[in-house]
Amino acid sequence: MTTTEQAFRELTKAHMGQVLSCIAEAVDAAGLTGSTLGQMLDYHMETGGKRLRAMLPLAVAGALGKEAKALVGFGAACELIHNATLVHDDLQDGDEVRRGQPTVWKKYGQAQAINLGDAMLYLAPICLESVKASPGARQRVLARVFRDVLKVIDGQEREFALQARSSDDIDQEAYRRMVRGKTSGLFALPMAGAAELCEAPVEVVEALEEAAGHLGVLFQIQDDILDLYGEKGRDQAGSDLREGKISALVVAFWQRANDADRRRLMQLLRADRRASSDAEVGWAIDAFREQGALSDCLAEIETLRGQALASAAFSAYPDLRRLLEGMAQIFLAPIGDIMESVG
Amino acid sequence: MTTTEQAFRELTKAHMGQVLSCIAEAVDAAGLTGSTLGQMLDYHMETGGKRLRAMLPLAVAGALGKEAKALVGFGAACELIHNATLVHDDLQDGDEVRRGQPTVWKKYGQAQAINLGDAMLYLAPICLESVKASPGARQRVLARVFRDVLKVIDGQEREFALQARSSDDIDQEAYRRMVRGKTSGLFALPMAGAAELCEAPVEVVEALEEAAGHLGVLFQIQDDILDLYGEKGRDQAGSDLREGKISALVVAFWQRANDADRRRLMQLLRADRRASSDAEVGWAIDAFREQGALSDCLAEIETLRGQALASAAFSAYPDLRRLLEGMAQIFLAPIGDIMESVG
Repeated sequence: MTTTEQAFRELTKAHMGQVLSCIAEAVDAAGLTGSTLGQMLDYHMETGGKRLRAMLPLAVAGALGKEAKALVGFGAACELIHNATLVHDDLQDGDEVRRGQPTVWKKYGQAQAINLGDAMLYLAPICLESVKASPGARQRVLARVFRDVLKVIDGQEREFALQARSSDDIDQEAYRRMVRGKTSGLFALPMAGAAELCEAPVEVVEALEEAAGHLGVLFQIQDDILDLYGEKGRDQAGSDLREGKISALVVAFWQRANDADRRRLMQLLRADRRASSDAEVGWAIDAFREQGALSDCLAEIETLRGQALASAAFSAYPDLRRLLEGMAQIFLAPIGDIMESVG
Repeated sequence: MTTTEQAFRELTKAHMGQVLSCIAEAVDAAGLTGSTLGQMLDYHMETGGKRLRAMLPLAVAGALGKEAKALVGFGAACELIHNATLVHDDLQDGDEVRRGQPTVWKKYGQAQAINLGDAMLYLAPICLESVKASPGARQRVLARVFRDVLKVIDGQEREFALQARSSDDIDQEAYRRMVRGKTSGLFALPMAGAAELCEAPVEVVEALEEAAGHLGVLFQIQDDILDLYGEKGRDQAGSDLREGKISALVVAFWQRANDADRRRLMQLLRADRRASSDAEVGWAIDAFREQGALSDCLAEIETLRGQALASAAFSAYPDLRRLLEGMAQIFLAPIGDIMESVG
């Protein structure tokens, strides 16, 4: 286990109970105690998860020499927002299982899943009210909450629009903008928001926002690679391809492939999920590797890792730099073998 | 046209353009200019509506002797929230048409309708940022936004839970709590929130919150009556009954009916929408009238109207009292004939 993983584990052990209490208090404050909304919230939260969004603000506070505990309310807000997007995502994607349990819409129905996600979006700012901070800092962070989450929703919207079925070309710029919106907002918010609540210098807040953006894209490329080259076994690999998703590998391959291969890939992406043959998915997986798309993606990951750590603002905060390095390490652990075998 | 209607019409003419500009500026501030989210928002907002939530804060400001224009940002926030609930409601209820146009989910798909409603919930507080008010007042109003909307979501949730199919009895208390949550929050927010932003005395804010609660229930009972006894013609009447909804009339009838009639009503409420015969709906409509449920509801409306105007806090604010009276008048206009023929 890396030092950062160990640190997250300890933070979780020490403060996750407080985070969940803060959420329960927001439910009470809103008069929802004992309501079905409260029950559904408990059901969803009990499915678990890494609790990364809850702990990131606390880790940033620690790295800035402040008390982690002071940001419990903000951790609760970030965790609620992240989970609100999951509840709505599962419904949008038709996913029936999350962490081994029926998803909220599957268990309680579609209408109720919409209600729960909506409620979580408005419970989050109530959690933030409990954070002790200057009125100015709290107001700035609240403004950040709304803007960062809107970027996430916009990114999600762009992902639907990008599905290959609706376009004849694969637009690298559109892909980058989508990924940055979809993944970066929910890393930028807990990190830069935490620095703001700790009254860190503005250049540190901005550097964290920038770094979180790079780490978000790095995380997504890692996830795209895992879907194709992960350890789960070949017969499960490639679900992104079968769903017609434009992944980092698809974009990289598109830059390199000849017209015939582009057409073949497009055909696969456009095929109905059930019509995608294992043979064609296997061809894409091999072609992505052989024609250099995989190594392009791994190279981009290294660039992003470097960019995430590059800001001069971190030189006065070695612990913050170590935290960012540690996060990159954690994010890349699942594809460690692949990085070694290709690199 | 009543004086209050005239006043609303003038406010709308003078300020609705500013409200829509404020919303457009929030879209810009969130970096969503030109995005599909922005386009869907425009599409939905262009379907129109009474704009009551946008204008209510301005009307309250005027009645308190303040400049209506100062609350444009809050009117925009309330209008966005109201419409966010409509976008999600239409999807939850499967309604395909709103004001003669395809609903958002029907035109853009279910996933996109979820995204748009989510985005509108977080655009609303950005609109509020533009209101000039003391930091304390703005913070209190923002706290009110989250709590009032959570009550609305909770009320919506309770409505699903109340559908006759899932219970053997009709619980008057549960019905009242549902209606108060579902309808009152979106009247209490623009009215009490506006008074708070105008720095009105706390007893006026509280009296408005209370009055809005009564007016919300009054509005709902009126709507329930209209569904059964409205002018639309008998063949369209009773869609609430066909959908198995527990309306004010169902609750009132339940208190009076004998066991046989209760069973007959329950059978109708539980029947599949298509299986509900016109004859049974007709029976219920007549029985509600003959056994006194309709006059009970009309009496309750008069009680609520009185309660909405009762607070001593309004004695120093005759314009505010007139506004509340005028709202009740507007809400009840559609059932004016029914009130006369029964009363």
